[in-house]
Amino acid sequence: MAGVSKVAPTPLLKDELDIVIPTIRNLDFLEMWRPFFEQYHLIIVQDGDPSKVIKVPEGFDYELYNRNDINRILGPKASCISFKDSACRCFGYMVSKKKYIFTIDDDCFVAKDPSGKDINALEQHIKNLLTPSTPFFFNTLYDPYREGADFVRGYPFSLREGIPTAVSHGLWLNIPDYDAPTQLVKPLERNTRFVDAVLTIPKGTLFPMCGMNLAFNRELIGPAMYFGLMGDGQPIGRYDDMWAGWCMKVICDHLGLGVKTGLPYIWHSKASNPFVNLKKEYKGIYWQEELIPFFQSATLPKDCTTVQNCYIELSKQVKAKLGKVDDYFLKLADAMVTWVEAWDELNPSGEKAVEQNGVVVAK
Amino acid sequence: MAGVSKVAPTPLLKDELDIVIPTIRNLDFLEMWRPFFEQYHLIIVQDGDPSKVIKVPEGFDYELYNRNDINRILGPKASCISFKDSACRCFGYMVSKKKYIFTIDDDCFVAKDPSGKDINALEQHIKNLLTPSTPFFFNTLYDPYREGADFVRGYPFSLREGIPTAVSHGLWLNIPDYDAPTQLVKPLERNTRFVDAVLTIPKGTLFPMCGMNLAFNRELIGPAMYFGLMGDGQPIGRYDDMWAGWCMKVICDHLGLGVKTGLPYIWHSKASNPFVNLKKEYKGIYWQEELIPFFQSATLPKDCTTVQNCYIELSKQVKAKLGKVDDYFLKLADAMVTWVEAWDELNPSGEKAVEQNGVVVAK
Repeated sequence: MAGVSKVAPTPLLKDELDIVIPTIRNLDFLEMWRPFFEQYHLIIVQDGDPSKVIKVPEGFDYELYNRNDINRILGPKASCISFKDSACRCFGYMVSKKKYIFTIDDDCFVAKDPSGKDINALEQHIKNLLTPSTPFFFNTLYDPYREGADFVRGYPFSLREGIPTAVSHGLWLNIPDYDAPTQLVKPLERNTRFVDAVLTIPKGTLFPMCGMNLAFNRELIGPAMYFGLMGDGQPIGRYDDMWAGWCMKVICDHLGLGVKTGLPYIWHSKASNPFVNLKKEYKGIYWQEELIPFFQSATLPKDCTTVQNCYIELSKQVKAKLGKVDDYFLKLADAMVTWVEAWDELNPSGEKAVEQNGVVVAK
Repeated sequence: MAGVSKVAPTPLLKDELDIVIPTIRNLDFLEMWRPFFEQYHLIIVQDGDPSKVIKVPEGFDYELYNRNDINRILGPKASCISFKDSACRCFGYMVSKKKYIFTIDDDCFVAKDPSGKDINALEQHIKNLLTPSTPFFFNTLYDPYREGADFVRGYPFSLREGIPTAVSHGLWLNIPDYDAPTQLVKPLERNTRFVDAVLTIPKGTLFPMCGMNLAFNRELIGPAMYFGLMGDGQPIGRYDDMWAGWCMKVICDHLGLGVKTGLPYIWHSKASNPFVNLKKEYKGIYWQEELIPFFQSATLPKDCTTVQNCYIELSKQVKAKLGKVDDYFLKLADAMVTWVEAWDELNPSGEKAVEQNGVVVAK
């Protein structure tokens, strides 16, 4: 299905990466990404009414799943995949057979760097994922593996090899990723600051992971990238990526895997409706005050050496400790288990593959 | 002594901040800083031969201390102040009576931002110090208190007030602050990347603090800013600021104080001799492999509620645990105690002042 390409003949990781896009509309936004995405395979997860036809521009190589497909493929386990919420994107992670995933929202466009040049976001994510992370000590010149940078004086030599990078979290120019209260208070604020840095989130530190512009090593961390129960029939929304980020970070810290944030930027075009967002978020905003201490103090036993083991263990802790906050977390804990079961069904050798890779190291 | 000023009539914190400069030469570099420094008071710590006369450009308001002055003022306690090493700068912190300190090396010049405008480094440090820090959770758009930025979606609201900032660590364009091995391997590397960000170093994370371009709140953290025993008669050099940074960070984490790094940049003009540096550093390079785990696991008892208490407690741990690494650390631990004693002699109400401020909070 490949069309006429404008990019270099073989882009990085061409056959090892899938681009996952959740959507409810025609994917015209891909036109702008054509030079950067056209040689990659797309996994489109269609949310909402499955009878609607989503148009994909000519020349892209893609597979598309709607709700009927999800129900057919997962059977009763489809209950763990959210409906009418972009959290459904994690189904795409599960059906992919590639080593790397890049996921992007359909209201995200190509941003320009300060020199006016189009930013190849995917290429930067790949660079982030293919170079190590340094979560055990902060480097003041940021990513020491970038050209023109290194570890500064006082950085322990024993830590300079770094550890494998599992996640690359990219940022957004124009519309910042604010919560509803901040949107309401600052309706006109735009992010215009281009910060030319990539950095490792230190071990033991949590951050708000946004799913808009995100890449990860599926072999290393895939089963932890579950976006939870949001949207239709659920009491909250807009915490799908946050939930995934907190679970993922606790597990990465335990397994010795790195998480980076910073470059690349995408251009986020459209602010979502703050009133609608407030309705989705308000429970999350107060539940979160208990979630953060929970994740900050969560520890995993030493014998959890695979992502799946870690995730199941975390689901038990969610049930035991967050069940008191709201019954929703009992349901979510069950869905976490269902997710891992579904993952292993679709990826029968997943666990073994990770072990064979020899990259997952115990703490 | 004020000359004709080119800056706004009343610069920020004019009467509450001292600029501390360690030097062995005439301070011609101040000419370039005149528009930014001229209205502030300078404390010059003359290193090396006290009979040498250091010329200070006309129009600056300063006091100057040479080794004879240090010996006279501190008596036997002068042993804690390094000689023939820029670590002597910490004497300036001790004799200051101001709330804030900015310290800068005499080979540092005014850098330009990407638009070509001179960077007022001191003003940026003051902004960093006067706005809170956020060490308990990472904000992906960096400093949430900067204009045009805020806390992103998923940042707990209970943490948005932040905590008082104790230290602002600035960076360097041109000559990066590399250790001798990296200097030898990359003699031509220059830092040309302007990263337009200020960020809080997360709680529990150590970093390599460079003393070249550094500001701090003396009332909040002054007694922890001891630059150790370096230079003449000591087995190592170039670890003075690192030592201060690790001690300071452990104490800030314990007391609930923040540490920022990033902007402002200065222009670092001259690479020091890597062969000389290697001689100074080589013991530090391997000792450091034991120092970092020591500081990473150091905890202070709850009843340590002042910087002085914390620092004395830390000196005991240094003696007990690092004394085994080398006898040097026994001597250093004693000097840490001497330093605090000397600090309290010169700042008799120091401890009380901090308590009255009500900003030091127990963990």
